[in-house]
Order: sequence, then structure tokens, then C-alpha cells
Amino acid sequence: MAASNPLTYRDAGVDIDAQDEALRQAKAAIRSTFTPGVLGDVGAFGGLFDLGRADCGSGILVASADGVGTKIAVARRVGRYDTVGRDLVNHCINDILVQGAKPLFFMDYVGVGRLDPEVVSALIGGCAASCRENSVALLGGETAEMPGTYGQGDFDLVGFIVGVVERERLLDGSRVQPGQVLLGLTSSGLHTNGYSLARRVLFEELGLEPESTPAELGGSSVADALLQTHRCYLPLLWPLLERGQIEAMAHITGGGLPGNVPRVLRDVNAVCDRSSWTPPGLFKLLVEGGATDHDEAYRVYNMGIGMVLAVDPSNEAAVREHLVAAGEEVVAIGRTESGSGTLRWEGECSF
Amino acid sequence: MAASNPLTYRDAGVDIDAQDEALRQAKAAIRSTFTPGVLGDVGAFGGLFDLGRADCGSGILVASADGVGTKIAVARRVGRYDTVGRDLVNHCINDILVQGAKPLFFMDYVGVGRLDPEVVSALIGGCAASCRENSVALLGGETAEMPGTYGQGDFDLVGFIVGVVERERLLDGSRVQPGQVLLGLTSSGLHTNGYSLARRVLFEELGLEPESTPAELGGSSVADALLQTHRCYLPLLWPLLERGQIEAMAHITGGGLPGNVPRVLRDVNAVCDRSSWTPPGLFKLLVEGGATDHDEAYRVYNMGIGMVLAVDPSNEAAVREHLVAAGEEVVAIGRTESGSGTLRWEGECSF
Repeated sequence: MAASNPLTYRDAGVDIDAQDEALRQAKAAIRSTFTPGVLGDVGAFGGLFDLGRADCGSGILVASADGVGTKIAVARRVGRYDTVGRDLVNHCINDILVQGAKPLFFMDYVGVGRLDPEVVSALIGGCAASCRENSVALLGGETAEMPGTYGQGDFDLVGFIVGVVERERLLDGSRVQPGQVLLGLTSSGLHTNGYSLARRVLFEELGLEPESTPAELGGSSVADALLQTHRCYLPLLWPLLERGQIEAMAHITGGGLPGNVPRVLRDVNAVCDRSSWTPPGLFKLLVEGGATDHDEAYRVYNMGIGMVLAVDPSNEAAVREHLVAAGEEVVAIGRTESGSGTLRWEGECSF
Repeated sequence: MAASNPLTYRDAGVDIDAQDEALRQAKAAIRSTFTPGVLGDVGAFGGLFDLGRADCGSGILVASADGVGTKIAVARRVGRYDTVGRDLVNHCINDILVQGAKPLFFMDYVGVGRLDPEVVSALIGGCAASCRENSVALLGGETAEMPGTYGQGDFDLVGFIVGVVERERLLDGSRVQPGQVLLGLTSSGLHTNGYSLARRVLFEELGLEPESTPAELGGSSVADALLQTHRCYLPLLWPLLERGQIEAMAHITGGGLPGNVPRVLRDVNAVCDRSSWTPPGLFKLLVEGGATDHDEAYRVYNMGIGMVLAVDPSNEAAVREHLVAAGEEVVAIGRTESGSGTLRWEGECSF
């Protein structure tokens, strides 16, 4: 039984013209990220990056892959597509920054149910904006229209980053010793973790709408609070890395403080005091609205701390001075002691 | 209105234990891919790759991102999860091989609606198997459970690859001149493109089932034909690249021959003769079953040709000898002539 009318790719839900149009719209933004290391142009089979032209020495490559989780469901709900690309790039930069790496290039993948060139171009444009601000080349990517796998307006956004670090500057946990100070840097919100639970609590349990302005958010709407861009700590922390004043860093993503701080601990434990900072109102709203147990909440959410630095006491004053001069709120959240690589809580959450 | 019962991350559809279990099951397979360039172990923030230990010179990095399209819908339908990872890695390897690059490392991303550790571990295991066979390190990855974005059994699988090529061996189209021969290498089936239309034709228009064995498939079932692993051309072609006997290569993916051959053409055209090879029965079944116009079919499907080599006439005999000795069926599908970078068909499809 053959088809009675000729079937095209478009009939099966794949529109190559829409794909070309999305790329055309994004091309200028992509090209604007090209650093001296980039060879060639948009559209080659693979992106080309010449290490010799990138002024990065002959180091160790550090690579990471990540997504933005169901933060995209919030973006979709309010039709704001230009921020999640920034979230993704910033997340990826932080993930390799914690090993001391300078990011070189980034690649994106967009999977969609039905390709809307405006949406895809906004997603890629967000990636490009953050790449440009951080001198990271957007070296390539892939957009796949997959009817069936994704619902019509659904999509996923995935990023891949490569950076470089000189061997003697690699932060791999080996420099963490007992008696160091753990400094926390504030997050801008949920960053890119905990959104499945947060959406359930805010939209289902509390019955809020994206435009609701509950008192805990201090005037901000739920949508604005949830879509706050994931902070990029590269510009702030790079000078400290160059001066060798940080012994280790942990990016607080899925798993929260107890899931991420131990990733850079070897023969030491971290002791962290939950009473040393007050999580912003968004977290209070989430924890109380979901009646979520505190230990669970500190594993699901970053609770207001997006990055943790292990600093030797001899460097603490200089590090604090640099951070405060940059307008940063610094929280001494704990210390290291001999142990076997776990995080132990002391103190209770202040709410 | 707070939740009446304490809400956990698991209540919201995210099971961190299942994620840990999937990683635990995949760890041995991942470690088995580690080449001398890999530093550290599974679980760091970023994967570490030391170029100095990888015996790869100081070259140009070549990177690519890709998915396997809706081939995963076929895998899901028949519950066969160990082959699409191979498809993905092989696709990525071919994508940078065409620029002359040797692959160094690969990273995977798995997005799922509901995380089944067995399925995710099979997906990653497939990636690891192909990485191991091709001496590519599986350097890291991310598995994201995203209820809502993906249906319960739905998933997407994305790959990123980085390779290296010495500058003087980079294939960027500049060596393609008029008067060269275009040799086609057979594909093993659809590879990873055209599945949305193929599924529509086979399962909807023709009403076939995965276990059906239509005559055109010569005894193979529909599922087996559709899930044939994307060929990896690295082992076959690497000796020719080392000897400098290939001027350019095009990996035939989305867009087919007319969409991919021109990507390596500058001031030349490709003239390809569709009567020079007979597409396997699967393509006949798809084209006739969908009453799909031939020009459209050659843009959607690879039509039996997975890789095209541009070869100088002075090297043609040596190249053919190498390929035939490897058991390869070689098709002279066309030639280059002066022009402006397009593909022109001559001859008609033989069915």
C-alpha cells in the first residue's frame, strides 16, 4: 500500500527550511563570539579551534556537558526564550572554572518538537550573548526537530564546553587541607537546579501564577525569580585563580552543597554551618510551601550559595578584600577538618 | 497553602538514587574507554584530557555536537537500547573525520522523562562500546531526568566529540579541484537521518510492524533494518588520510548527498550520477511506499551512500586498492568540475 499522495520530510514533521532560517537568524550572533582561536565559519562539519592562536599554553583540556533542566519549562510557560541560553553557558563555564580552567569554546544542542525559527534563534542568541561576554567561542551546534520525542512546543537545550588549564594550576582537590576556610558566594536564585520540585510547589501546591508577587520575593514576580540568570563566576574569580589564592572550588548544582562540596574533598571533611547565612525569600517560600525537610531542601536547592571556595587562612584576607571590592557578599560557611570526604552540617537553617 | 505532606525531589519526578544507580552500572564501561590522555576518574566536575600524553601533536581541535534523531523512537518501540549509543558515537566520529581529525574524547547527554537505570546504562554502554573500539575516551556526560519535557518512556541522546588534526593535514575543501573523482562508500542503512519520514512511511502508510519482513529487506525485519548501526569510517579511512590520498570527504547526514557534498566544495561543482549505484531495498521500500519524489528522497535519505571521498586521479588506483582489500564496495558516483559549489544530478535512480 503506497501513500496516495507523495510524502515529503515536511509531512513527517521535519522542516529543513525552518532549520535553515533559524541558523540564518543566529549566524551574526554566533560569529560575534569568534575569538582568535576560531578557524573557518559557521556550517562546517566540525568547528575548528586552533590552540596555538588562543594564547593558552599547552595544558590540560577540561570538558563538561550539561543541560538547564526543567527551567526551560518555566521559560516556555512565559514565552521568554532569550535567557536560558545564558543559564546554560554560565553553568558550563562554572563547571570547568572550578578545576581552574579558562573556557575556550562552547557548543549547543537544541532538540524541539516543532521548529519555530524565532524560538531557536532566541535560544542560540542567549548562548551567544553569554559566550561573547566571557570570550568563549560558540564553535558549533546542532538543532534537531524531533516530532514525537518532544511535544509541539517542548524543547531541550544542552551545552558542551571545553577549556584549558596548565597542569600546575589544575584544581583537583589535592590542595584541600584541614584548617582551610570555606567561603560561599551568593547564587542569583535556583540557577539551574531544583526546578521540577520548585514548579510543583509554586504552581501546584501554592497555586501561584508566573505573574504572582508573593511577599517572600520582595516585589519580584514568580517568573522573574525563577528565570534569574545562573550567575557566571568567571570574571569575579579569575584574578584569584591567577594569583593562586584558591585551593579548590565547588559549583553548587544538582545535589546542593552536600552533593557538590565533597567532590573536591579527599582526606578532609567539610563542616558547614547553616546558620551562617539566611537563604533568600525564594528558598523560604519553596521549603515552607513544599513542607520540605531541611536536609532534603539543602540537597535539591543551592539555598542561596552558588559557589564555594576553599581558601588557606594565609590568603583569606586578600581573597575577601578582592571579593568585597567587587561588591560581593561573602559568607564564611564553614571549614575543613581531617576526615574522609564528606560534608557535615552544624547549625540550623535560620528560618 | 503549604503542602499537607512534605514534598521531596522524588515526589516531583526526579530520583537522584536512580541517577546514581545508572552511573554505577555504567562506570566500568566508561572506565574501559580511558586512553592515556585521560586524567582523573568518573565524577569530577569536568573531564580532564592531557594533550601532552595523547601523542597527538599540537594541532587544531575539531569539535562537533549531534543527536541520533528519531531513530531513538524505533529503539524505544522495540526496547533495544544498546545500539543507539553506537550510532551516536560513530556519527560524531565521522563528522570530524571528514576534516581529517583523529577523535580524542566524547561526552554524552541523556535527557529522560523517567529515569530507568537499566535503560540509561544501556544507552551509555553503547556509547562506551563504540568509544572503546575506536580509542576514543568517554570523558564525561550528563543524565537529566526531566518529567514534563519528555514523556515517561521518551528520551533524547546527544553527543559531543573533540578531535585533533595537524594544520597541514586539515581537510577544509581547499584541496578540491576540478577533475577529481568522487567515490562513494556504502552506508549500512539510514544511519541517523530520515527516521521521521521513514517511520511514517513504514509504520503508518505501509502498516508494517517492527517484526515484519517485507521482501525488499531480503529477510531482515523492519526493526533490524532501521536499527542497523551507523557505520564508523575511521578504521577504514585513517590509513588513506595518513598517506594524504584524500582531498576532501563529506559525511552524508541530514540533507543527503546534495546537502552535504557541497559543504566541502568551493569553486567547483559536483556532478553525481544517480544511475551509478542501486540504493538497497530499504530505500526502494521507503521511496515507493511514501510515493516520495526522487529529488526529495535524495535530500532526506543517504540512499545507500554514507561517505563521499574526493580523490585526485593520480591517487585513484591506490585508494581503490586499499578499499577493495578491506572488502569495501566502492562506487564512482561522480566527478568535480569548475563551478560555484553546488551538486548537480545526472542520471536517474535505478528503480
